[in-house]
Amino acid sequence: MELPSQIEELTKVLSTIPGLGKKTASRHSLNLAQWDREKVNTLIEALEGLKAVRNCNECGALTENQICGICESSERVGNGVLCVVESYSDFLAIESSNSFKGIYHILGGVLNPLLGIGPNEIRLNELKDRVKKHGVKDIILAINPSVEGDATCSYIKQIIPETLNLQRIGFGIPIGGSLDLLDASTIHQAIINRRTFD
Amino acid sequence: MELPSQIEELTKVLSTIPGLGKKTASRHSLNLAQWDREKVNTLIEALEGLKAVRNCNECGALTENQICGICESSERVGNGVLCVVESYSDFLAIESSNSFKGIYHILGGVLNPLLGIGPNEIRLNELKDRVKKHGVKDIILAINPSVEGDATCSYIKQIIPETLNLQRIGFGIPIGGSLDLLDASTIHQAIINRRTFD
Repeated sequence: MELPSQIEELTKVLSTIPGLGKKTASRHSLNLAQWDREKVNTLIEALEGLKAVRNCNECGALTENQICGICESSERVGNGVLCVVESYSDFLAIESSNSFKGIYHILGGVLNPLLGIGPNEIRLNELKDRVKKHGVKDIILAINPSVEGDATCSYIKQIIPETLNLQRIGFGIPIGGSLDLLDASTIHQAIINRRTFD
Repeated sequence: MELPSQIEELTKVLSTIPGLGKKTASRHSLNLAQWDREKVNTLIEALEGLKAVRNCNECGALTENQICGICESSERVGNGVLCVVESYSDFLAIESSNSFKGIYHILGGVLNPLLGIGPNEIRLNELKDRVKKHGVKDIILAINPSVEGDATCSYIKQIIPETLNLQRIGFGIPIGGSLDLLDASTIHQAIINRRTFD
């Protein structure tokens, strides 16, 4: 029994979406093939709409404009604090926590020599330029803890002026987390990062 | 922090796909927004391609033609056996088991008065016509066991000639299943459906 080739074709494209396996992609294709034409058109239009989305010339966030709302806000630029993140999703996570009021810089990845990702493959030169241009005083490295993330932090330390206040976000037990379920490295970090309790 | 409206729009459309929650849909939208234009076009083309897929005039399966390959095969039609299923996915499941060599009839649902699905909302009249037209001798009801499925089977029994051999697929312990993990109704059915062991 062969499926119509159009469905197979769509499955092939859908399964390139991260997090969608062959089986789920196939289920979605079958489902979409049973949608009425109008609904498929709505989806196609939404995808066409995506083409108007671009990267902010400054921080790299997704935006409809040349510069995103945050980089345009003189208040946020004026704070002199810049938060470096790996990805747009990490940027969204921090924004939605409402705990940071400066500007961002999205690297678009971390250094990973094994995958051929060197300093020129991620937005490190742009970071250096922006730090200078905006008179940034404080940099918060909100880069995820991993061998590659740690290496990227070390690299950034080397390329920015020593006078800057460079910090990395805290590691430890997540709120709601449970010691008996956490890995040894997290617990180790949590012990190191202990603070006076008052 | 507001996401570009195009991303929100796509999330809205994607979250109408069964099995895609708001959160997963949003993750996919963000991901798609970061695809290059060419790849988005491939996806759009695949979706455009779907429009050529239609329902077989006979059994209702998805096909590129007026009549699907199975309904066109004189060998399969000639067997005089028709298998009634709820959905195209159920049809695919049976086809891939290689255990049935007759023709199919896809109802497109089961009777469900609470949801307003009566005999005219599913393909029951077409079933009656096809049984007559193809000189079907045996009907296998491969309708899933549920209150609605059972009611649909009873309804079909009433609308087809009494001379036909009407059977329902067997219920019991699935192969690889484990009694201690199965529900009481399945075990009950398995006991009823016991067979001489030889």
